[in-house]
Amino acid sequence: MRIKIKQLKSSDAANRFLGKEITIKGWVRTLREQKAFSFIEVNDGSTLTNFQVIADSNIDEYERTIRRLGTGASLAATGTIVENPDKKGVLEMHATAIEVIGTCDQESYPLQKKRHSFEFLRSIAHLRPRTNSIGAVARVRNALAFATHLFFQERGFCYVHTPIITASDCEGAGQMFQVTTLDMDAPAKTPDGKVDYASDFFKKPAYLTVSGQLEGEIYATALSDIYTFGPTFRAENSNTARHLAEFWMIEPEMAFADITDNMDNVEAYLKYVLKYVVDNCREDMYFFNKYISPGVMEQIEQVINTPFERTSYTFAVRILEKSGENFEFPIKWGMDLQSEHERYLVEKYFQKPVIITDYPKDIKAFYMRENDDGKTVAAMDVLVPRIGEIVGGSQREERLDVLEEKLDRMGLPKESYWWYLELRKYGTVPHAGYGVGFERLIRFVTGMENIRDVIPFPRFPGYADF
Amino acid sequence: MRIKIKQLKSSDAANRFLGKEITIKGWVRTLREQKAFSFIEVNDGSTLTNFQVIADSNIDEYERTIRRLGTGASLAATGTIVENPDKKGVLEMHATAIEVIGTCDQESYPLQKKRHSFEFLRSIAHLRPRTNSIGAVARVRNALAFATHLFFQERGFCYVHTPIITASDCEGAGQMFQVTTLDMDAPAKTPDGKVDYASDFFKKPAYLTVSGQLEGEIYATALSDIYTFGPTFRAENSNTARHLAEFWMIEPEMAFADITDNMDNVEAYLKYVLKYVVDNCREDMYFFNKYISPGVMEQIEQVINTPFERTSYTFAVRILEKSGENFEFPIKWGMDLQSEHERYLVEKYFQKPVIITDYPKDIKAFYMRENDDGKTVAAMDVLVPRIGEIVGGSQREERLDVLEEKLDRMGLPKESYWWYLELRKYGTVPHAGYGVGFERLIRFVTGMENIRDVIPFPRFPGYADF
Repeated sequence: MRIKIKQLKSSDAANRFLGKEITIKGWVRTLREQKAFSFIEVNDGSTLTNFQVIADSNIDEYERTIRRLGTGASLAATGTIVENPDKKGVLEMHATAIEVIGTCDQESYPLQKKRHSFEFLRSIAHLRPRTNSIGAVARVRNALAFATHLFFQERGFCYVHTPIITASDCEGAGQMFQVTTLDMDAPAKTPDGKVDYASDFFKKPAYLTVSGQLEGEIYATALSDIYTFGPTFRAENSNTARHLAEFWMIEPEMAFADITDNMDNVEAYLKYVLKYVVDNCREDMYFFNKYISPGVMEQIEQVINTPFERTSYTFAVRILEKSGENFEFPIKWGMDLQSEHERYLVEKYFQKPVIITDYPKDIKAFYMRENDDGKTVAAMDVLVPRIGEIVGGSQREERLDVLEEKLDRMGLPKESYWWYLELRKYGTVPHAGYGVGFERLIRFVTGMENIRDVIPFPRFPGYADF
Repeated sequence: MRIKIKQLKSSDAANRFLGKEITIKGWVRTLREQKAFSFIEVNDGSTLTNFQVIADSNIDEYERTIRRLGTGASLAATGTIVENPDKKGVLEMHATAIEVIGTCDQESYPLQKKRHSFEFLRSIAHLRPRTNSIGAVARVRNALAFATHLFFQERGFCYVHTPIITASDCEGAGQMFQVTTLDMDAPAKTPDGKVDYASDFFKKPAYLTVSGQLEGEIYATALSDIYTFGPTFRAENSNTARHLAEFWMIEPEMAFADITDNMDNVEAYLKYVLKYVVDNCREDMYFFNKYISPGVMEQIEQVINTPFERTSYTFAVRILEKSGENFEFPIKWGMDLQSEHERYLVEKYFQKPVIITDYPKDIKAFYMRENDDGKTVAAMDVLVPRIGEIVGGSQREERLDVLEEKLDRMGLPKESYWWYLELRKYGTVPHAGYGVGFERLIRFVTGMENIRDVIPFPRFPGYADF
């Protein structure tokens, strides 16, 4: 019977497998060949570390078999599980049969034992999940995604698939990708020389969504608590380690909830998913902490164990003004917080995660609920060490008249928002929600520097390969 | 404390809540007003059925409060939980306070008590989740999605986000949506009058994915077992009740697996998620069985409890030839099975779910593994009653030489498949997978006729509203 290596590394593995004959299947990571026997380190991706197979001349055609193996080759090894004589509690296999499933040309295989730059690995995105780092990212990403579902399902939230393609005008067309089936070289034109969308698939211009929030509000005002988890798009020409054109977002939305409920929920959410990773990805997290970002485990533990600081934007600005720091962008009430300000607040002043609330209304989106002071809105940003803002959210404006006035003031066309406004016309409720940039969360958890390395196939300006 | 209605309907609700004072929040479904007291049916979307609140003149400003309520209005009701005197075990609330949160104009509110056509409801997609049917679809969809994650996570599969935007040529550009940031009215042109993609976002034509399978194979050949669950797109001009331009797919891929492993996995998957819905969505399923598709529960139970029939295409064709049925498309070895053939096999001949394997190679995709007979490939389709094909999959061609020869034969450019071929060059393994059309699955489970009603915001030719 085939056993996955993860099971052979589990705490009850000795009880279950010692002395038993089993089969493992995987890929050779290293082969130490000796005349009469060889050590084969096998990995099957179920876990970070390899499993050692000892092959000796007992196996059929020992020499021919070993000659066909090498880093990257795939095999099935059958044999008895024994304890490593030098490492108490560590299991290994004495092979009785080895089947070479797929060979691997050692001359051309790009993943030899030496360490490769992440930049090089991106150019072989079809092979990089076979490396320790990108394999570990994949498992941690999986754990964070599943923990996200567990958290919301346990609390009775309904998972909603909001649309990817949208012809709705509400999102604001800036920095959106257009979606079309027209022949780009020679689209049909109207008499005045413009593209004639009558022959496009959706009969009007359509775009890729930048957020599922507005549609999420539709479902929250019917089912009470919902969340989305899907891809979103930004056609921003940013060639940085922090931006992707295609990324995944988690957007919970709660009816009958205010900004305090929102803060309570996001704090519980972050603690929950981080704890899940710590509990379920021990080897991977050990690896990140040791080789990628020393100290990352401590930062995670701190987020899990420390109550988040909650402070208003106005108070945060006062702290920054009094800090005596020489900021590149001198702080002033009314401006958005820059990365340097956020890091000062999180890393120096509070030294723990901070939720900043009640931002000036002029720097925040139209849908955020206006506070009674007439100057601020019930927005919240969650800041964590190293990453800065990891979550943004708000209580939404549920008062029809206030929202209509706001749209007018901002010059947004009310007709486009007809359905969004009707949510306020028919049984409106206070509601709140937030958005988690999933790749930012993974960057925080793994300590990986470049966002292009925490998504399987990154998309950015000039790049959509694989 | 606010309690959700789902909790008040649970089997231990009497123990927990009888005699207690609690608060519920939700929307009025019906209001039966009487002079001295009123019955208010409240729904908060956590469950299908409403919760009855009895308000009498004890509450503050009884008349003014009741006058402001009506179908669709939102409220918070606080009171004591009592047993309905006429219905043993059914709880209701004697309200001591009612707060009208949001009123609802009864003249213009489109969701009055009468039944609406699904077509009409599609035009008010922002309100339709407040109806019994679309609310129930949302909860069943959520349950199927979560059960999907549970099934694969329990088995050690890694959830992988394959790309949505792709410039890879492998997918075949037919019926794909193009993604661009060029000014459609006046894109930059090359000297020969074609669109100059140098100034497009990805510097070449990019499209929306039709499947994550090929990228899924990348991760399977590194992590052993993976699955995707994300949106996919088809720019097919099909205005039918069975097609969407944007839909969700689940695509598991297993390394070291053959077509039999694939069949075992898909059968276990379908039984698992159906059982999860039966166990967790009792009220919703009762509703579908009673009002939408009588018999749907029985069909689901049959899929859960019956081992699937497994038969080859060749044998299936023989059955069809001997059936004596007068098919619109007379059956002949080599042609694809039509809906009428599939239904005959599932509903009349076998009278249970059927997995059909080993289709003629000429009607199946290039990546399917060629069988030793030289005529068929290791494909599999899962057929269920009423829907027909609900899953398609195959063992993949893992032999480099066979795959290269196949690409040549089909006139596909090998250069475009360089990375797909390298998976076979470096440690190739037998592997297999399948794709579940998520909306088809929901149609099967709910009995909903039109696929546009099982996705929150359907996209089809001429339509991408909301």
